[in-house]
Amino acid sequence: MKIYRANLIDTPTKDAFRIIEHGYLVVDDQGRVVGVYDQLPAEYTNQPVTDYGDKLLIPAFNDLHLHAPQYRNSGIAMDLELLPWLNTYTFPEESKFSDTHYAQRVYSRFVHDLWKNGTMRSAVFATIHPDATRILADLFLKAGMGAMVGQVGMDRNGPETLSNTTEEIVAGVRDLYAYLLKNGQDGLVRPIVTPRFVPSCTEGMMQALGDLAKELNLPVQSHLSENRGEITWVKELEPQSTCYGDAYNHYGLFGQQPTLMAHCCYTDGEEMELMKRNQVVVVHCPTSNCNLASGMAPIRMFMNEGIPVAIGSDISGGHDLSIPHVMQYVIQVSKLQYARTQGQLQFLSLNEAFYLATKAGGAFFGKVGSFEPGYEFDALVIDDADLNYDNYTLQQRLERFVYLGDDRQIKVRFCRGKELCEPVVY
Amino acid sequence: MKIYRANLIDTPTKDAFRIIEHGYLVVDDQGRVVGVYDQLPAEYTNQPVTDYGDKLLIPAFNDLHLHAPQYRNSGIAMDLELLPWLNTYTFPEESKFSDTHYAQRVYSRFVHDLWKNGTMRSAVFATIHPDATRILADLFLKAGMGAMVGQVGMDRNGPETLSNTTEEIVAGVRDLYAYLLKNGQDGLVRPIVTPRFVPSCTEGMMQALGDLAKELNLPVQSHLSENRGEITWVKELEPQSTCYGDAYNHYGLFGQQPTLMAHCCYTDGEEMELMKRNQVVVVHCPTSNCNLASGMAPIRMFMNEGIPVAIGSDISGGHDLSIPHVMQYVIQVSKLQYARTQGQLQFLSLNEAFYLATKAGGAFFGKVGSFEPGYEFDALVIDDADLNYDNYTLQQRLERFVYLGDDRQIKVRFCRGKELCEPVVY
Repeated sequence: MKIYRANLIDTPTKDAFRIIEHGYLVVDDQGRVVGVYDQLPAEYTNQPVTDYGDKLLIPAFNDLHLHAPQYRNSGIAMDLELLPWLNTYTFPEESKFSDTHYAQRVYSRFVHDLWKNGTMRSAVFATIHPDATRILADLFLKAGMGAMVGQVGMDRNGPETLSNTTEEIVAGVRDLYAYLLKNGQDGLVRPIVTPRFVPSCTEGMMQALGDLAKELNLPVQSHLSENRGEITWVKELEPQSTCYGDAYNHYGLFGQQPTLMAHCCYTDGEEMELMKRNQVVVVHCPTSNCNLASGMAPIRMFMNEGIPVAIGSDISGGHDLSIPHVMQYVIQVSKLQYARTQGQLQFLSLNEAFYLATKAGGAFFGKVGSFEPGYEFDALVIDDADLNYDNYTLQQRLERFVYLGDDRQIKVRFCRGKELCEPVVY
Repeated sequence: MKIYRANLIDTPTKDAFRIIEHGYLVVDDQGRVVGVYDQLPAEYTNQPVTDYGDKLLIPAFNDLHLHAPQYRNSGIAMDLELLPWLNTYTFPEESKFSDTHYAQRVYSRFVHDLWKNGTMRSAVFATIHPDATRILADLFLKAGMGAMVGQVGMDRNGPETLSNTTEEIVAGVRDLYAYLLKNGQDGLVRPIVTPRFVPSCTEGMMQALGDLAKELNLPVQSHLSENRGEITWVKELEPQSTCYGDAYNHYGLFGQQPTLMAHCCYTDGEEMELMKRNQVVVVHCPTSNCNLASGMAPIRMFMNEGIPVAIGSDISGGHDLSIPHVMQYVIQVSKLQYARTQGQLQFLSLNEAFYLATKAGGAFFGKVGSFEPGYEFDALVIDDADLNYDNYTLQQRLERFVYLGDDRQIKVRFCRGKELCEPVVY
């Protein structure tokens, strides 16, 4: 049992913040929230309280789409659209992960910087390399941070240095599954079935991965309808599919298991219907969609349709690991769509963006992302004294942290109830 | 005479970076650049050299549009479009600057944070209040930073607490002019004629301000074609004008003197022609245009037409003072326009955005923003050791500083050849 006192802010629903000034939050010995309170209930009054004074205590952030092996390329190499970008910058960088020493070096920095930025759960693409992928999983476990880690399947249209066979990817996922069943800290780190995207995977590989996801009851992640050139290419590659999403759906990779599809900039009509029916999660990556000149995903339409939405940094199409920084773009891109449609598509509010970054993304990991009873206690202590120089309200303080803050204000990080210390960079 | 050694990066033209690895830069006793060199010329070899090792030395940033009295509202209050945003959040905040103590407190933090973020020159809107405006000018002078400071004229459609008369604004500008002629450190801080925008200014006030700008040979700044609702309103208010810009042009406020017009999201046709003919400077404020759901300014078209372009943070429509952060949006918004036009409008490159933030913006202040001979030495020393962990090229290091850095990497700031110490916050 632990009791914390601070200014508590979370979003049990997307429609409003719940704000408790100088409130109390009780966590049980399993690291789950018992409750939040204005006044400490009588039964706890003899217990020690960790008092964070005037600081904010908020749910930690969840990043539902990013590529760990692209971390070295963050903030550079953004002068091309998706397909030439992959061939010119990204595939060569990912190819380096046949070297486990390189993997240890980049992945340890990557996990460290997720910690630094307050991202406690993430759904991560690794590479085709099983050894490097296990190194990544181990780094998350050592840090105590939640992750779904995907060894990537790709057996067409990539360089030789970055291709595997169906047998290799199936064996890799099985091995990681067995390893994490034993060592994964009760599901804190899990494998996720990861066909790179339709242009990278033959029918045989997609069928095998769909079967494997079902057999092992694993989630699935991939990319969908990100870029116009990509969509045209998928049409040529999969002429029998009625839409890009249908090409995944045919192989059981589109919601038959819990499924994340990154981007969805050009999803509409039948594809949107299919996502709604199968409750496929849209992972919105607006920084990446800006940087690679992909376009703007119709997030308000997805939300109106009842399609689940989460957000991702998409390192390194996205330049920045910080989920609060991505939240800025979530709101701003929705405002550009509002302007373009002359107000027909209502823009996202701060509480909606915060909900996507916490509870909506957290749902993929179980009861994560809120301070409601039974939720795993993933949280950040925010000391915004440097930003709060003029009697801002608690909501304004949160807003200023999102728009003007960075890792400097994040003082303490909890995942599953445990306070996490700084991970080592090798 | 001063000699600096570092990795030198600037943009004498918009088309490419000039990069000199471990180069030398010589500054004369007037604070002007003598030259940059691969090897130190023989005539200087007996002089002391300030060696910044592997750090970067770049021109300082110039912010051509921002509102000092809105600084308290940075990062909050962005849930409305321009016109209701002004009435709900902005005018009430600006009204507080009748209190000179409040002005001293907010303005000193504002100037401090410009310093912190490496912005050495700025074109600033103050308020209608002459005393507060002089406080702002004095804070810039004390800090040693360049600025054009505009007392604001507004005599219609604002609250009573934020309205002045033609006589008052003309007297205010004359007083500030006289004061800065004497105390402005040889034009480091100058007044700028500042009608808020057409909806705030009667014909009488605009005529008087146009006449005054001409008489005192002062530059002019205002807002243009930012938001659809605003443009419609201007059409109603000024039915005789053929376009929004024409309403300024009629009174000598549209390029007759050097003129900054912020936003220009919806400028086209005749207005674009007029700006080209009069060489009116477009000040592009993409963070603000996103935050207030205004839209996307056609910057590539302005550049293709030969209309001068600079960039601004537009505090507090824009949330962030950092010009490198604004540069990200300059590039990203241009990429969304590239996507929307299916590649017809080429997006801006990093060197183009850097050029806008340094040399193009600097041109409004004289020879500022480049390391070419005769330019005033405004510069920043960037220590990016924390970002440069894997043998990035010098250009990539600059790119990572722009996309991933913040004030932490800015170690030394020069304006007009002087190293500036940290300004006091009252």
